[in-house]
Amino acid sequence: VSSLQLAFARIGLDWNDAVFTSAHNRSLSEVVGWAKRMPKVGILTDQKNTPSVIAKTLLDCGIADCRAVVAENLGMENEEIIDTHLEQLPLVDSGPLNVLMLLRDNDWRPWPAFSPRSIDSYVHLRGLITKRDVRTLVLARLALRETDIVWDIGAGSGAVSIEMAELAWRGRVYAIEKERENVECMEKNVAKFGTLNVSIIHGTAPDALTKLERPSAVFIGGTGGAVVSILQYIDNSTAPSCKLVACLSTLENLVKFMNILKELGWIVDVTQTGISHSRQIAGMTRFSPLNPVFILSAQKQGNV
Amino acid sequence: VSSLQLAFARIGLDWNDAVFTSAHNRSLSEVVGWAKRMPKVGILTDQKNTPSVIAKTLLDCGIADCRAVVAENLGMENEEIIDTHLEQLPLVDSGPLNVLMLLRDNDWRPWPAFSPRSIDSYVHLRGLITKRDVRTLVLARLALRETDIVWDIGAGSGAVSIEMAELAWRGRVYAIEKERENVECMEKNVAKFGTLNVSIIHGTAPDALTKLERPSAVFIGGTGGAVVSILQYIDNSTAPSCKLVACLSTLENLVKFMNILKELGWIVDVTQTGISHSRQIAGMTRFSPLNPVFILSAQKQGNV
Amino acid sequence: VSSLQLAFARIGLDWNDAVFTSAHNRSLSEVVGWAKRMPKVGILTDQKNTPSVIAKTLLDCGIADCRAVVAENLGMENEEIIDTHLEQLPLVDSGPLNVLMLLRDNDWRPWPAFSPRSIDSYVHLRGLITKRDVRTLVLARLALRETDIVWDIGAGSGAVSIEMAELAWRGRVYAIEKERENVECMEKNVAKFGTLNVSIIHGTAPDALTKLERPSAVFIGGTGGAVVSILQYIDNSTAPSCKLVACLSTLENLVKFMNILKELGWIVDVTQTGISHSRQIAGMTRFSPLNPVFILSAQKQGNV
Amino acid sequence: VSSLQLAFARIGLDWNDAVFTSAHNRSLSEVVGWAKRMPKVGILTDQKNTPSVIAKTLLDCGIADCRAVVAENLGMENEEIIDTHLEQLPLVDSGPLNVLMLLRDNDWRPWPAFSPRSIDSYVHLRGLITKRDVRTLVLARLALRETDIVWDIGAGSGAVSIEMAELAWRGRVYAIEKERENVECMEKNVAKFGTLNVSIIHGTAPDALTKLERPSAVFIGGTGGAVVSILQYIDNSTAPSCKLVACLSTLENLVKFMNILKELGWIVDVTQTGISHSRQIAGMTRFSPLNPVFILSAQKQGNV
Repeated sequence: VSSLQLAFARIGLDWNDAVFTSAHNRSLSEVVGWAKRMPKVGILTDQKNTPSVIAKTLLDCGIADCRAVVAENLGMENEEIIDTHLEQLPLVDSGPLNVLMLLRDNDWRPWPAFSPRSIDSYVHLRGLITKRDVRTLVLARLALRETDIVWDIGAGSGAVSIEMAELAWRGRVYAIEKERENVECMEKNVAKFGTLNVSIIHGTAPDALTKLERPSAVFIGGTGGAVVSILQYIDNSTAPSCKLVACLSTLENLVKFMNILKELGWIVDVTQTGISHSRQIAGMTRFSPLNPVFILSAQKQGNV
Repeated sequence: VSSLQLAFARIGLDWNDAVFTSAHNRSLSEVVGWAKRMPKVGILTDQKNTPSVIAKTLLDCGIADCRAVVAENLGMENEEIIDTHLEQLPLVDSGPLNVLMLLRDNDWRPWPAFSPRSIDSYVHLRGLITKRDVRTLVLARLALRETDIVWDIGAGSGAVSIEMAELAWRGRVYAIEKERENVECMEKNVAKFGTLNVSIIHGTAPDALTKLERPSAVFIGGTGGAVVSILQYIDNSTAPSCKLVACLSTLENLVKFMNILKELGWIVDVTQTGISHSRQIAGMTRFSPLNPVFILSAQKQGNV
Repeated sequence: VSSLQLAFARIGLDWNDAVFTSAHNRSLSEVVGWAKRMPKVGILTDQKNTPSVIAKTLLDCGIADCRAVVAENLGMENEEIIDTHLEQLPLVDSGPLNVLMLLRDNDWRPWPAFSPRSIDSYVHLRGLITKRDVRTLVLARLALRETDIVWDIGAGSGAVSIEMAELAWRGRVYAIEKERENVECMEKNVAKFGTLNVSIIHGTAPDALTKLERPSAVFIGGTGGAVVSILQYIDNSTAPSCKLVACLSTLENLVKFMNILKELGWIVDVTQTGISHSRQIAGMTRFSPLNPVFILSAQKQGNV
Repeated sequence: VSSLQLAFARIGLDWNDAVFTSAHNRSLSEVVGWAKRMPKVGILTDQKNTPSVIAKTLLDCGIADCRAVVAENLGMENEEIIDTHLEQLPLVDSGPLNVLMLLRDNDWRPWPAFSPRSIDSYVHLRGLITKRDVRTLVLARLALRETDIVWDIGAGSGAVSIEMAELAWRGRVYAIEKERENVECMEKNVAKFGTLNVSIIHGTAPDALTKLERPSAVFIGGTGGAVVSILQYIDNSTAPSCKLVACLSTLENLVKFMNILKELGWIVDVTQTGISHSRQIAGMTRFSPLNPVFILSAQKQGNV
């Protein structure tokens, strides 16, 4: 399978600083992830994920137009090099096995490595969204790896799910949400930001968790009341290294979480936020406070 | 230069999911970065950065032992494949041009994509370190890209520099600090966490800035009094897209920054933190507050 | 002038535990103050402030109905004792010099000695009122005496003025306010709570201050921009023991106050409030934050 | 008993603006209270509380030296007027029934009506004292009347007791504290500030409460663990109008209080404080936060 190398050779480009990836047998989220990060990407396409399909997906996920080269039937008689742009590709017909190369010029810059968004960036039902600074502190406590599998229980409109998915871009986030209206917001947000590695699940925890991959991290934004059974389910089904972070706005839920987790043998740590933002009024600077939130973070004893 | 591909073929491994990089003409920081992120890495070595030198660097930077294969003189008569472990490599003598492959098993997990550290993780002079949650909020505002060039003015013991360098791992952080004692702390911290892309500069801003690459982001942790000249220098020497974030603990400096930046035509936004952490006392949970800090973030008008 | 003693003797009551006061030559605010505090009060009336006028004032000021005895022409031939109730008195015709006695039964309780009110208690333009907890902290810093003369500059709807007047009930509060709409709110509030020792002044500081008694304490709720001249005027016209407290919501005004006062040789101390109140939602307890406010308190150097 | 009037007549002073009180059958705390508040006070003395005893008490309680006149055997042959100063009186021998007059000049000012003290003003075991601003907010919520009877459960070093006693100066504060060391601090503090209407009780609630007067307000600064029995005892033994305020620093105690009080039918309201004070460092102003505290205030349903 030297086709990737061959493809770069055909257009006279050094491939040592390229990243090679494949659209074969997994979702295209990793292809999108590389396209966000690296200036030169070589992609092996297949019958399902043709250059045209991939290009459409990349554009939908927010990748800007760039030089795109499709190398067809490399080394064969009917070899063809289509040197065009990403935005042209959806119209291009190509064979089943190709190499697609994305090539950016020197001005190109990768996407931010970490950049939580303002709440206005997301579609959400009024008030039902974790504020940017709180999300930021949550993400810091989760300490996600690029390959993590995450459960987001009570995912709401998906802001935390999406930003977890952007850090764990080679992993997957399962976003469980029981309210249809929130699920609809989340679908719009995931589409808008092109985070293909968010799997939206319309259901109720802990039932909705039973069919999912074992997570390496869990975030709880809301529990719908079933705190005990959810925490017990998490305790039973996660590895000792699993991190749990929860955002709680009520005293009662906070103390309930603390008590249950302590009984289950987890070490619990709580942060209370009290963050104010400046507002300009008549050329002067006032501060406007966010609602205080409790961020609980926990890990099984002996694993902190 | 198909040696990288050939090397993987020699040991019977698929290279499509490997990342290839080179130790040729730049610091080894990118090699370290890939080794932290990807399970399969192929590295072209050179006369200066031999497999032995690279292995030593990787181990110093915290990369865990793993299978390491050196392919020497590939395709030539004296071709040799040394299939060993990273920790053995520093002792191995090898030719000038080789391929070094790092190969991890299925259990291997990459380093956290984002995980600000507790202040106890860093050597620091008492009190002179930005607290973890404040650092987290700073990093969110900087919205760094993996390739960013950053100035950290008044870098202190380097905690922010190091964590910026971990996000901008294919870029570089210039950490300017005027106090010798702080520089010594920073040197220890950079060594401890293996962030080779932090350049420590013992000097005073704005003088120490004149020889540096133009930054895409600036963080100010301290100014040593020269607020006006530093901000003017930044205004003159940065692109309109450059982000500026500063941590200020005094009212006077905050208002000074705001006034100067507004005069220079920047849009300024301030966050005041009021964060408390839980402390267990006699089985009960109290809250202990951090000192409130002002986080100023600014961008040139028309670029927010 | 043993008429007061005689009056109590006439109705067979011990006067040792009564307080005697006079409606002669001052406003009735002190009469009201005693009626709020003490169960047995003897009042010398005069031609202007007759029992009928006093009773009307007391009822307007919120004093509850009670036994009220008017002793007319004591010791003279036409002596008359009218033993009735406060609410009947406005209809009673009596001579020019009488004794009015207020007599409460054992269940009677004085008014609270210190009880700042919720903002809903006051008529105010939306937002333009100091919050209860902030007022409380302001009053603590002013450390008013019952006889203090206070200036309230930028008195707004008068909440702070009224509560200062309730502590300095034998003194007087001059409430300066430049907006007509606020003055109207203040007039309603002063009427509602019967604080006769608040003098409302519709005018602009420092001009409006020139004709006023020298104060023993100054509160600034707003300056209308003339910060420098107001603070200089206060510095010139107050005794060294005078306390100054100001509520500031903007950074710019805070730093301006601090700088000017320091230059004038005052010692300045600032408190920033970050207070949250519980709210019950679906049987659970959340916290809702007040806007943070800076409370500046200052005194001339050497007098702290 | 016209001796009071006669006494003032003897020295040619108008007594209409004087307050008369008696040292007969109650503690001297009310005498002290009047002496703090009013410029002219007439006191009927008795065999136990002679002018000499009263003078000593007043001086101990912090009343400054002033003109003091003792009128002995008024209207009798052996009538004697001793016109002297308060500080001389302890040495003066006088008969069993006298009138003592305190007379202040025009410069005299009463004590502050409300002025919570800094923690440095009180002897206390390190940390075990309610901070000034928190005490202030507590006192505002208690809304004490001058005649209130208050229980202070877990009174610690007595700072709150003393300041409640200063507002309820014609009432009484029962300060219950179980730790001997705290009781000793409290004794020193009560002596220092001359609050004779604080009754210190070395004991444990609810047992120590059984013999006390029924309170019109209750403050809880600490419970020593017996939360349930203390709150039930308070619920049983107080009138519906009784106010309850508690300072709680732990989440667990807060939620316990809330739950028990709600079950008992009380309406509960919680304030969380987050107050910072300015500190000058190198001519610049930083803020230093107090530990956050929960102030719970409650009243029986239907009485809020």
